[in-house]
This record gives sequence, structure tokens and C-alpha cells, in this order.
Amino acid sequence: MMCTPIACWVVNGTKKFWDFMRTHDSVSILIFNITRQCFILVKQFRPAVYMCELEQHNPQIFQDKDMNGCCYPRDLLPATVGVTYELCAGIVDNPELSLEQTACNEILEECGYNVPVANLKKISSYRSGVGVTGSKQTLFYAEVMDSMKTDIGGGKPEEGELIEVVEIPLEDAFNFSFDENLPKTMGVVFGFMWFQNNIAPLLQKK
Amino acid sequence: MMCTPIACWVVNGTKKFWDFMRTHDSVSILIFNITRQCFILVKQFRPAVYMCELEQHNPQIFQDKDMNGCCYPRDLLPATVGVTYELCAGIVDNPELSLEQTACNEILEECGYNVPVANLKKISSYRSGVGVTGSKQTLFYAEVMDSMKTDIGGGKPEEGELIEVVEIPLEDAFNFSFDENLPKTMGVVFGFMWFQNNIAPLLQKK
Repeated sequence: MMCTPIACWVVNGTKKFWDFMRTHDSVSILIFNITRQCFILVKQFRPAVYMCELEQHNPQIFQDKDMNGCCYPRDLLPATVGVTYELCAGIVDNPELSLEQTACNEILEECGYNVPVANLKKISSYRSGVGVTGSKQTLFYAEVMDSMKTDIGGGKPEEGELIEVVEIPLEDAFNFSFDENLPKTMGVVFGFMWFQNNIAPLLQKK
Repeated sequence: MMCTPIACWVVNGTKKFWDFMRTHDSVSILIFNITRQCFILVKQFRPAVYMCELEQHNPQIFQDKDMNGCCYPRDLLPATVGVTYELCAGIVDNPELSLEQTACNEILEECGYNVPVANLKKISSYRSGVGVTGSKQTLFYAEVMDSMKTDIGGGKPEEGELIEVVEIPLEDAFNFSFDENLPKTMGVVFGFMWFQNNIAPLLQKK
């Protein structure tokens, strides 16, 4: 994540400046475990979410900085306010891998399932954070079975990832989606709804 | 949009630094015009999306900077590659207004419809850009009629907004959603799907 670029444009004769953050494109994966009929999500502490909550409780928090421009927030709120439910996801930083292969690697790394590329179905792609990053996010659906679970998942602790794998039973998905006390990304709610419309009818037939 | 804060944390005995972007919380609104049975979206040029596309075509583009750290991208791609379809949306920057009132103001400003607060239905709230901003986004549904159209909309040109109001007929919504040649946010696709599940059955009964 780099925070520096500023682009200059001329719009209707006026010079305009935009600062924006360069980020990689990303993949995210709606994972459904057919053995136990549950969704597989990841839950992680998100500093940015935590800081938003902190600042809402204490708007002054960013005013005390050390000489490096760094602020040291004190623990004013429990860490749980920064914990977010998300789809398994990762950035696309290896141009030699297909999006599908990148997605499979993320599923193994974060959730511990070894999924063949053929099990992936592309849902669609979107632009995320259009005001800030504008990167492209491709959303996949992957069906997994207990027998594919070869690892515990959890991300790469050496890269600072502290990911918890969470299972949401199919019958709880609707209530989970609309429970605002459980912070989540739109991808989770969209994914569950897409599943209800596109996959659930097929499961019932099986 | 401020790009400076760096937060320092100690995780498992190691000092960690995160830079992140402070942004405001936001509202977005799925608007359906019942007079003409169409969705009302906004279409705008997004520098961040454009820059992503530019960089993909020319990875060197951010290397030439002037003494202010500013780069002047040359027009290597048509501006249309940066145009994105989005839900009407706005930031929450006036703490004296309710989220609903903020949403109504955005609908008038961007799309030209004067909607009573009572016409708004909250869908849910989400965390957006959890890796970068972590701000809370609240999604509403608003039904409008042609008779509520009191203004042309288009945003605030004096603040650099160049917004085009776009109508997507209900019968085209599905194909539009999954046409990847038309860049859009996940909010658009999620909103259309939510409408199909929650509002369309009621419309048919009417």
C-alpha cells in the first residue's frame, strides 16, 4: 500500500489535483462447505476499522503525534470493535498466476482448504473504493468439502495476518447478514444473497 | 480525504505501523423510479479508476514526478475507462443531520429528486475498504416518482463533481449487473439483487 501519488489533471480549464492510494487488484471468494452446509468466512482485526471507531469516540485522537508523524492510540476501546467478518480475499500481486490460481492460494492460506481451480466459479468483477483506490475486485464462488481441509489456515502470521476462520451455518446466514452488531463487508452480504438466488435452488434439487 | 495518519501498535511484542486514510462515513441509496420502472444511478469519471487502468497499461507512469511529487499523466487512454456506474452516495460530514436526511440531500443534489425522509428504507450498513479506510457505509432504498423531480441533479460542479444521472430500466437490470464491460461498484449489483428479492415481488402484487 503506497500513499504518495498525486495526479494532476486539467478539467474544464482548471488544474485539479487528486491524491489517491495505489493498491493492487484483488480477488475474493465466497466459500461454501457442502459437507457441513456452511459458509466459510474470515474474521480479522482491522486497524482502519478500529481507528474509525476510536476517532468517533475521541475526535482529538490524531492530534498527538511524535516527530515522525506517528500517533500512538491508547487502548480506549476493546479490540473487538475493530474485528470484521469478510470473505476470504487477497491481492493480485503475482502476474504469473491466473486470478483463479491466486484465489485458490488464498483459500488454502487463509482457510486451509486445498481447492482445485476447476471448483471455482466467477461471479463477477467490481470496482472497489472508487473514490480512493479504484482497484478491480473479482468475486468467485468455491464449493469445498471437509476432505479438502489440509491445513488450519489463519493467514501468514509472519506478515502480520491474524485471521480466524469462521463457519456460518446456511440456516443462520440471513440473520447474520442483517445483524448490524456484527461488522462485515458488503461482499459477505452480497455473496450470501447471490448464493440464495443461484446455488440454493440447485442444492435443494440434489 | 487525508492521507497522513500512521498508527503504531504493539502486536505480540512487535511494534507495527499501519498507514491508513481517514475518510468520512458514507450513505448510499438504491433509487427506483416507480413512474417509469427504472433504477436511477450516477455515472462519473473516477480518477482513481482511471489511474489503475493507466498503470496497468504503463507500469512506469508514476516514476516521472515534478519537484512537488506530482505526476502529470499524459492521455494514454480514453477518459471512458475511468467512468464508473455507482449508486447515488455521499459522505456524512454534517453531524447535525440524520443519515436519512443526508441521504435525501444527496438524492436531490446528484439526481434531482426531492424525496421525503419517510420514503427511505434502510437496507443495512457495512464496512467499506477495510484494509484502507474502514469507514461505515449505510445503504438505503428510496422510491421516487417523476413528480418528485425538481432539479436536474448532477452534483456540485463547483466542488469538481461531474455526475451524469443514468436510468436503467428494470428489465435491463440483470444484464447490466453482470456486464463486465460496464465498470460498476458492488453496491449497484448488490442493490439490484436486493430489489429483486425484496421489492419486485411486492410490485407484481400491486
